[in-house]
Amino acid sequence: MFQVQILGTSAAIPTKFHRPSAQVVSYHDRHYLVDCGEGTQMQLLRYRVKLARLDAIFISHLHGDHVFGLPGLLTSMSLYGRNFPLKLFAPAALKKVLDDTFKQTESYLMYDLEFIPMEDFAPGSVVFETERMKVFSLPLEHRIFCRGFRFEEFNKRPRFNFYEAKALEIPNEYFALLKQGNPITLADGQVIEPERVLSPPDPILSYSYCSDTKYSEPLVDHIKDSTVLYHESTFLDDMKLRAAETAHSTSREAAEIARLAAVKQLILGHFSARYKSLEPMLMEAREIFPDTELANEGRIFKMKDYG
Amino acid sequence: MFQVQILGTSAAIPTKFHRPSAQVVSYHDRHYLVDCGEGTQMQLLRYRVKLARLDAIFISHLHGDHVFGLPGLLTSMSLYGRNFPLKLFAPAALKKVLDDTFKQTESYLMYDLEFIPMEDFAPGSVVFETERMKVFSLPLEHRIFCRGFRFEEFNKRPRFNFYEAKALEIPNEYFALLKQGNPITLADGQVIEPERVLSPPDPILSYSYCSDTKYSEPLVDHIKDSTVLYHESTFLDDMKLRAAETAHSTSREAAEIARLAAVKQLILGHFSARYKSLEPMLMEAREIFPDTELANEGRIFKMKDYG
Repeated sequence: MFQVQILGTSAAIPTKFHRPSAQVVSYHDRHYLVDCGEGTQMQLLRYRVKLARLDAIFISHLHGDHVFGLPGLLTSMSLYGRNFPLKLFAPAALKKVLDDTFKQTESYLMYDLEFIPMEDFAPGSVVFETERMKVFSLPLEHRIFCRGFRFEEFNKRPRFNFYEAKALEIPNEYFALLKQGNPITLADGQVIEPERVLSPPDPILSYSYCSDTKYSEPLVDHIKDSTVLYHESTFLDDMKLRAAETAHSTSREAAEIARLAAVKQLILGHFSARYKSLEPMLMEAREIFPDTELANEGRIFKMKDYG
Repeated sequence: MFQVQILGTSAAIPTKFHRPSAQVVSYHDRHYLVDCGEGTQMQLLRYRVKLARLDAIFISHLHGDHVFGLPGLLTSMSLYGRNFPLKLFAPAALKKVLDDTFKQTESYLMYDLEFIPMEDFAPGSVVFETERMKVFSLPLEHRIFCRGFRFEEFNKRPRFNFYEAKALEIPNEYFALLKQGNPITLADGQVIEPERVLSPPDPILSYSYCSDTKYSEPLVDHIKDSTVLYHESTFLDDMKLRAAETAHSTSREAAEIARLAAVKQLILGHFSARYKSLEPMLMEAREIFPDTELANEGRIFKMKDYG
């Protein structure tokens, strides 16, 4: 299971329909929060994500619509009884804001908050990894220090062919050895090479998150071949100059980046409050990159093999 | 028009049904925000309060569930184009948190934020007034510096009896003079004393907000005869000891304070997330003070003459 659920996707100002940026990336039983706009803890409750159990938090940049939900979420995690460490990846200056806010509001966390400054990592390098997934830093070009994140599988295991193993009448207790690539010898002396029951691993899946950025071709190499790309789309292309001035992108530009990076699917998000309908954005992007969707609140996008 | 609309009424942790503390007190065409928990700007949008037009903000204390919505609200007001000053009454330490947050998130307000520290006022004194309404500071007893607010009419004008004036065949152009208490002389030489068309003013109406406090009898004098009293009710009375330890109140204690202060109506709020149903709170309070209601999100309570 590898998916992302959108919790919020407005640009600077929330609207009746859109909340500030936040999303949950889930890889099997691990859940990662990416950005944390105001109200994220309420959105987590709404979509039944156990907020005290989040495995790590990744913050792209320090504009309010991406971080103002953090003090409330972090203190609620404590009130819900979290007592094991939490990794928080974010621009360095956030630490001072949090420390000061907690001090003045007399908030105490009952768990260890491990703050990891994103400035410590070169763009493209790995910032976090588990046994089967790595998170890379992506260089975004915004008005303020800003990093995207690429979640990517690695170390994928060969696929075990259960029915083939059954057909060969291999007892279940040998399965673990075969899955790990070991030959086995059955009771009748027959040797089974692991290749007989293993197929090549499924393709590597990945998710790239590009929260706030102007149109940036240097980004393309970093997000190349992503299974799913979330790319900001603050404006329609008729506001291309305004987008450039504010270091944001248009729907057309987001689609162009998706096409150049040869991703499988594009999700548009971070919509300016001026747009009452988002259909024109979708149409504009689909002209260039047909497999485009809108990041509406609550939607789940699954990383899957499109081959 | 004198009313309060509840925007949020959870205690420390929000739930699926309750948001952190915030409410809007409206007096004719003026709107005052009282406390500003996380998500308040979204609640203002939901209930169609024009957030950029708020006349002043009053913050009772610096616990996160009463202030974490401020950075987002204040920056959104600016993005919505507010360009006239805003008064913010709050404990002094909030200023540092806001200044630092705005600095690190590169947020700039396009209006003048007039910060007024509540420590400057003795409990019971007037902190703010318009031509017809005063706001008093109320001494609350919590774990941290905490003030409630009493909104009270003053300088009420006598009621002008329009039909009596018509019966006396007084031309409309004399009405303003009479309303101001002046005698007039009609064209036929007849003198009309203002008392002929004026009745005594309606009773003074008031609203008292007591956000977080332990059971406090010294508070009673300050909220005496309020038309409506909002009093926190974090726990049921079987958790009276826990309430005392955390400097909160039970439903029974809130009702006792309402009874001692001889208010007209009591609103219970600030409910602990542990209670799935609030009916037991209502029943407990009504045993002591029958005219009790629950502060559910969206509810409007009107100050009116109960005489």
